[in-house]
Amino acid sequence: MRIGIDVGGMSFKGGIVNPEGEILYTHVESTAGLEGYAAMEEKLFILVDQLLAKAKAQAWTIESIGVGVPGLADVESNMVVYCTNLGWNNVPLGAHLKARYGLPTFMDNDATVAGIAESAKGCTKGVANSVFITLGTGVGGGIIVNGKVTSGAHNKGSEIGHMIVGDNFYTCNCGNNGCLETFASATALMKDFQRRIEAGEATALCVDANGAKGVTAKDIFDGAKAGDPAAEMSVTRLAKYLGIGLANVVNMLDPEVIALGGGVSKAGDFLLNQVEAEMRKRLVFKEGDQTRLEIAQLSNDAGIIGAAMLANYK
Amino acid sequence: MRIGIDVGGMSFKGGIVNPEGEILYTHVESTAGLEGYAAMEEKLFILVDQLLAKAKAQAWTIESIGVGVPGLADVESNMVVYCTNLGWNNVPLGAHLKARYGLPTFMDNDATVAGIAESAKGCTKGVANSVFITLGTGVGGGIIVNGKVTSGAHNKGSEIGHMIVGDNFYTCNCGNNGCLETFASATALMKDFQRRIEAGEATALCVDANGAKGVTAKDIFDGAKAGDPAAEMSVTRLAKYLGIGLANVVNMLDPEVIALGGGVSKAGDFLLNQVEAEMRKRLVFKEGDQTRLEIAQLSNDAGIIGAAMLANYK
Repeated sequence: MRIGIDVGGMSFKGGIVNPEGEILYTHVESTAGLEGYAAMEEKLFILVDQLLAKAKAQAWTIESIGVGVPGLADVESNMVVYCTNLGWNNVPLGAHLKARYGLPTFMDNDATVAGIAESAKGCTKGVANSVFITLGTGVGGGIIVNGKVTSGAHNKGSEIGHMIVGDNFYTCNCGNNGCLETFASATALMKDFQRRIEAGEATALCVDANGAKGVTAKDIFDGAKAGDPAAEMSVTRLAKYLGIGLANVVNMLDPEVIALGGGVSKAGDFLLNQVEAEMRKRLVFKEGDQTRLEIAQLSNDAGIIGAAMLANYK
Repeated sequence: MRIGIDVGGMSFKGGIVNPEGEILYTHVESTAGLEGYAAMEEKLFILVDQLLAKAKAQAWTIESIGVGVPGLADVESNMVVYCTNLGWNNVPLGAHLKARYGLPTFMDNDATVAGIAESAKGCTKGVANSVFITLGTGVGGGIIVNGKVTSGAHNKGSEIGHMIVGDNFYTCNCGNNGCLETFASATALMKDFQRRIEAGEATALCVDANGAKGVTAKDIFDGAKAGDPAAEMSVTRLAKYLGIGLANVVNMLDPEVIALGGGVSKAGDFLLNQVEAEMRKRLVFKEGDQTRLEIAQLSNDAGIIGAAMLANYK
């Protein structure tokens, strides 16, 4: 059995996972958000102690601890280089876990970890070359080449959300213009819709530009499905640029499968069909065997399962 | 010893290469271009016969044959799927070589092969994770991850020249708009310069728009170095979009080194410094260890050396 921990902004979710990637037990420790690393580490230890006590009671042997973090992890040194929304900079998370528990400890970025979960138990199971892209508030990625996580020479890769695919009307949080994240995230969809309503485009989703601020990404997808003009334009734009981003991934890495996860992927076939058409027309090689596009199967559990399975993909 | 063959539009260049990647002997067979596959295969056999005769005379043991082709090779089946400028479609090049000579036979795209040459004997020697980008008439790429060539699940990857990085004023040969190749190749530079002269921008390189057609990429780089206004604008634009393309590669794959080869790379530090600045400012992670940008060391010999060394990178 392995322990998998999903580090989030307001909680640590931990689980005991068997070698098949099934969760046997979970426990959650809430945090107060930006309360400083020392206090948060203390809560993490409480969580792991709890998981180990459960394992002991069940006579399960724990072989490793895996952690997914919402930021940059240095796999070699087991440091968290930074997590902006936790206020962590160069914290020795992995080293401290290893020192306290004496177990092999693995860490990686949460999008990479979610991709591993899909490989272990989801839509990319048994696939040697895959790319996972999470489309939520932001856009993140995980790349698996020949069955191994590929985050590059300095573990700074798989930042698919910051691939520049065009010019955009607003600047990305990273400081650049044109990142995929500013076209294909839920945030991007809402910003584009807001802009259209401010420009007077037709919609039935709100009465004025002020009202557009209350319209969610789901509202916009539902509106587009129902033929709402401004919502359709926003979704069409998202599909075009996501198609460009996916074509860039295929033309560069040619994975067997690209798995799409995160809230935006829940728009389902309505979105997937448009995105796939935009992607396919931009592929260099349009004949013969092709990359498949699939919707991720795991959602809330992906963080725990992927973290637990990290050991297999290093 | 290995045989390496560089398949080009007008000739087959062959060489005998030692395990250190040094060429011991070369031989060239000219072709008449689009003369059909059967006639060209005959010339390829003449070339290999000649190389094997030389090896026999020198008492060198030949262990394998490697071939670099200007198109898409199916590594598993040893088929050339297509080479547009040779008029080849699904030709059994590898299988026929193997049947005739009974030696292990390897094939790949010429840009990938040139990248391997750099890894064997050039600027990426000893580097496990590298990306090679050739900037010539077009833009090609070769990706090495953990010491192995990575062309994806269907060998259709590493098409870095067709990564879409913006909107452009002309369409790529592949049918799409915005490919890196249409911004960063020698062809792209000349087209951009032509467009500027047609629009009346100032230059000392030609007297009118008609004259701009005789201006080479090298003329434009030399002009930019000397402060020619239109040439400077064209080079600045190339550097910006090449910087975006390289940043996308780093943010996705984080290689230890990106090696730039091909005619455009001969513009040297003048271009490299601009491109590097454009790349660095678009990286997600700007601190700590970073991808290095280098100019490829091998030029005309890269095709033979890389083809001969293919066996090591599969």
